[in-house]
Parts: sequence; structure tokens; C-alpha cells
Amino acid sequence: MKIVLDAMGGDTAPDTTVAGAVRAAREMPVDIILAGDRPVVERQLARYSDRPGNVSILHASETIGMDEPPVASIRKKKDSSINVGIAALRNEQADAFVSAGNTGAVVSAATLNLGLLPGVERPGIAITLPGLKGETMLIDVGANINPKPVHLLQYALMGEAYARFVLEQPNPRIGLLNVGEEETKGPEFIKETYGLLERAGINFAGNAEGRDIFSGEYDVIVCDGFVGNVALKTAESLAYAIKEVLKRSYGMSPITRLGAWLSRSAFIALRKEIDYAEQGGAPLLGVSGVCIIAHGASSAKAIKNAIRVAYESARHDANRHLAEAVRSYAPT
Amino acid sequence: MKIVLDAMGGDTAPDTTVAGAVRAAREMPVDIILAGDRPVVERQLARYSDRPGNVSILHASETIGMDEPPVASIRKKKDSSINVGIAALRNEQADAFVSAGNTGAVVSAATLNLGLLPGVERPGIAITLPGLKGETMLIDVGANINPKPVHLLQYALMGEAYARFVLEQPNPRIGLLNVGEEETKGPEFIKETYGLLERAGINFAGNAEGRDIFSGEYDVIVCDGFVGNVALKTAESLAYAIKEVLKRSYGMSPITRLGAWLSRSAFIALRKEIDYAEQGGAPLLGVSGVCIIAHGASSAKAIKNAIRVAYESARHDANRHLAEAVRSYAPT
Repeated sequence: MKIVLDAMGGDTAPDTTVAGAVRAAREMPVDIILAGDRPVVERQLARYSDRPGNVSILHASETIGMDEPPVASIRKKKDSSINVGIAALRNEQADAFVSAGNTGAVVSAATLNLGLLPGVERPGIAITLPGLKGETMLIDVGANINPKPVHLLQYALMGEAYARFVLEQPNPRIGLLNVGEEETKGPEFIKETYGLLERAGINFAGNAEGRDIFSGEYDVIVCDGFVGNVALKTAESLAYAIKEVLKRSYGMSPITRLGAWLSRSAFIALRKEIDYAEQGGAPLLGVSGVCIIAHGASSAKAIKNAIRVAYESARHDANRHLAEAVRSYAPT
Repeated sequence: MKIVLDAMGGDTAPDTTVAGAVRAAREMPVDIILAGDRPVVERQLARYSDRPGNVSILHASETIGMDEPPVASIRKKKDSSINVGIAALRNEQADAFVSAGNTGAVVSAATLNLGLLPGVERPGIAITLPGLKGETMLIDVGANINPKPVHLLQYALMGEAYARFVLEQPNPRIGLLNVGEEETKGPEFIKETYGLLERAGINFAGNAEGRDIFSGEYDVIVCDGFVGNVALKTAESLAYAIKEVLKRSYGMSPITRLGAWLSRSAFIALRKEIDYAEQGGAPLLGVSGVCIIAHGASSAKAIKNAIRVAYESARHDANRHLAEAVRSYAPT
């Protein structure tokens, strides 16, 4: 299996991306192709004396910045690492694409150059979050900020198939993000989606609330990209604030620090809970090809984990199952 | 000053509400009026041997449950503690009303029975959240799930006035919740609001993101009630999950527990960050009367703090300033 990684994408690329690729190449039975500026990437790779043989470079002379306008930049920078990586996927030189770069640019490039799965009208970003009772996949967290009810229906069908066939959950529980549990709650747009999900032939468990995103009560929660994006960033922001508060407190006294060291098992569990970005990448569901979006601030470990998500998606032939789920949709 | 508290509202009412009222009565120069079923409330009060003289009961024979349909229940249960409390406010028997009960019922009762401030079309719930660099007020978190841009403009004007005159911030920075910083981002509805806020004669600092809710970079962040509600509950859910993870870890070994005790200053700071519900109530801005909404799961301390928010709002004559801000709005 071949996975192409956008070596130039991310807040600390290419250092972190190359480090993550090297770790992934050692742990997984995959060939990693680094899309990026050859001399720059080569210099990073040269730092590894025991450089793995299953890492190669695919030259891309341009880089799209994290804040560049997505559609304009992928049109203008034809030879950007994102375009070159997506092209490798389209030309079947690779089985999956991973990027921690400009999310909007990745979504646009994938949509325009790979096309969508049959029957899918819009792609959605599906992020997996840890919860007390298990993981929850939230879809969409920002690809589609103005969706129609039918788009949310397609997210539910694809999320269900992904949870079932890639995450290997036997009967995924699907929820619809709303402001209350009752069917009558929420704006018209959400009530209409509720009706569609009820008749979608999936295990639809009704409305979920913001509090369910970390409760683990649902395997998949469907929402519009605007709300999903805000919820995700709110959670990140709170997690960051909590980490900062703890860090500052550590600085206070040697006793406090000793205490923190003694109770490190608690802190390790805590860090695992709040560093969900480390868990890996978010699949862009609905495009014709395995595309994984990683957080811009990904560490090497997070990049490695995103590559693992790509590996699992490709290994389980995710898109065949997603297309099948959307195609075989018949309202009950 | 007289503050009427919905003694029957909240997950653990009337135990917790009465306990909070007693604490508030001891600490603040206010008379607390407990709206609720007299024998039930009297029984709770009787538990305090040193019962303060500035606590009284206003009989209300009915109670609206936390999950009852808001509008129908306030119409049907004329003598509910929410209706009786709001009526006391309307009849000028009280200066403020506080409830940890059914939020929708409080919003409906206040809107229908108190009316709105001149020029205000919809009320909004404004919650204050702690951040690394200071507090941020998020408005609206659920009163209005389908607002028009002009409603968000009114939230911005009222939030600005509240921050300035009640929270005593000299020049509040206002942000608009969106999925990116650039003016061109987001759905049409948000872009239109952006234009209105630019011309509102306030210190509008542009788009804020979900991550800014806990950054403290903005004094007031304006959003629609659907998104605000989801963001708030997401944060609560993550905070809860983190507390649970820590609790479970404490159970693991005496060494871990000793460590946690030694580093308790860190944990106290952490608890302060994540227990923002303890900070008190959320003013319902836009109704003609001081109405404070507390979390359904409020502790006695949280109830006391919500009463303090009511006290501060009434003391600073919040609604006069809010009405003035909306009335004197002139696009620049």
C-alpha cells in the first residue's frame, strides 16, 4: 500500500511531517511518498541516519500557506504539494492522501480533482473524539458550512458505513446534533433532517446534544459544518486552557510539582482525554479517494496516527462501503 | 433590594435552591423571596436553625418540570413558581428574578409577561465563561435558535452595554462567532451580521472562532442560539469527562492520591477553570426586568452566585443601559 503525505502542510512542516512519516514507515507495512519541495524534504530526511527504505519523495515546487484562500490557491499553485499529492491519488500512484495543511485547500482540491462518490453531493470531515464510554465520530466539522438536510442524510449514511466497516462497530448508533432531545426541538432545517434520518434504515437514536460529543453515547453524530467546527474548536480551546492552568500551577512550588509527578497516572489519563488531536486524522468522507485531514498543529505522533487512519481506511476499502451505503439508500 | 428566586426550579430543588438562598441572604444586602410551594419550601427553611430574617416565601402551588414543553406549561400552569416569580417582578414586588428551572419556560414567561426592552426583537441568554486572559460573555446560548442578523446586532449592543456598565469593562471587545477570522468566511447570514456590527459604533474586533470562547481575547462573543448552545454543552461535556477521568485515576493508588493532594493547588485552579457553572447565572438580556437563568444542575454555591449576578445587574440598573444602547444605535 502506498500513502502520499503532504510534507509541506502543517504549522511545523516539514520537520514534523517528515518525522511522522519516518515513524509510520517503521511501524506500518506501507510505502510513504512525501509530496513536497525535494531539496527541503531531502534535507529533513537526511537527519535520519537509519532512514527507512519505504519513504520516497514526490517533487512539488509550490506550497499553499495555512491561511491562503482555498479555491484560489489550489487553482493558482498547480504544482503545490496538495495538488501533486491529490494527483498521485487520482492517477493510482497512491492509495491514500494525508495532509495537515490548509483544510479548505485540501477539501477543494479533493472535491475538484477526485470528484465525489456516486450519489454524494458534498464531502464532510469526520473527526473521531474520545469519550468516557467510547469514541464518537462527529461529521461534518467544517467542509460544508451551509448544508441541506439531504447532505446531513448522506453524512449519516457514510458515517454509519465508516463506523461499521472501518472502525468495526457492529451496529453504530447515529445521533443528530440539536439543542434538545425532543423531536420537536430545533430549527426547521434540523427537524427536516430528523425526518430523513428516521427513514434512512440506520440505527438512528434521535437528537444528540453538545454534551454527547464527549459522552460516548453515540458512535456517529451528524451536524452542519458550521456548528461542528465551532464545537470542535471550543473543545480544543477549553482543553488548551486546562493544560495551561495546570502548567502554571506546576510552576508554583516544588511540592506541587512533586505531587503532580506522584499523581502522574491521573495526568497521563487526563492528557489522553484532552489531546485528542493526537489520535490522528479526520477522513474527508464523500470524495473518490482516501483523503485524511490532520490538525495543523499535529505533532510527529499525530502525523503518524493520521497515516494509520489512512492505512485503515484504505485497507478496509472504506470508499466502496461508503458508496454502497449511499447508493443502497432506500427510505423505509 | 428584593430578589425573587424560583425555589422549585433545578435538578435538586428545593434543597439546593433554598440552601443557596440562605447563603446569599447572609452575604448580600438583599431580601430573598422564595417562589414555591409554601409547605415544601417552609420545610426546607426549617432545617436552618439560624434562618436569616431576610428570606421569605411567596406561595406558588404549581411547578414546571425541567422537561415540560415551555410555552404550553407556562400557559397551563398559571400558578407555577416561574409565573409567580415573574409576576412579582412585573408588579414591582421584586427587582430581579432568578431561576435554575426549565430554561425555555423562563424565557417564554419573561418574554410574554414582562415584554421586551424598546427596540429589542428577541431576548438572548448571555453566559460568562472564564478564560486564560479574562472572562468572555457568550450571547446567545439558546434563547433564539433561528435569529436574524438584526437580532445578533441587538445582542452585540446589549452585550456591550452589559460588559461596560455591569461588569465595568471600559471598552469591551466584541467578536462574531465564525469558522475563520477572515471577513469573507462563513454563511451569508453571518457575513450580513458582520456588516451590521462593523457599522454599529462598538469596538467590533471581527470574527472570533470556537477557540476564542476560552481564550479571553474577546469580552463579548455574539452567536446564534443554536451554535452557542451546542458550544456551551460541548465544553461542559469535555469538562465533565476530564473530571471523571481524574476521579477514576484517583481511585487507582494511595500514591496517586497523595500526589493529587500535594498538587492540590493545580487541581483547585483546574476545578475553577472547568466548573464555570459555579460562576453563577446567565442574564436573559432584552426582557423588561432583571432575569437570571442558572444551570439546572446548580449547587447551592452556584445559586448563591446567580443571586449575586442578579444583585449586580439590578444595582447597576442594567436594563436602563441596555435599552439606551439599543435606542441610541445609529449605524456609522
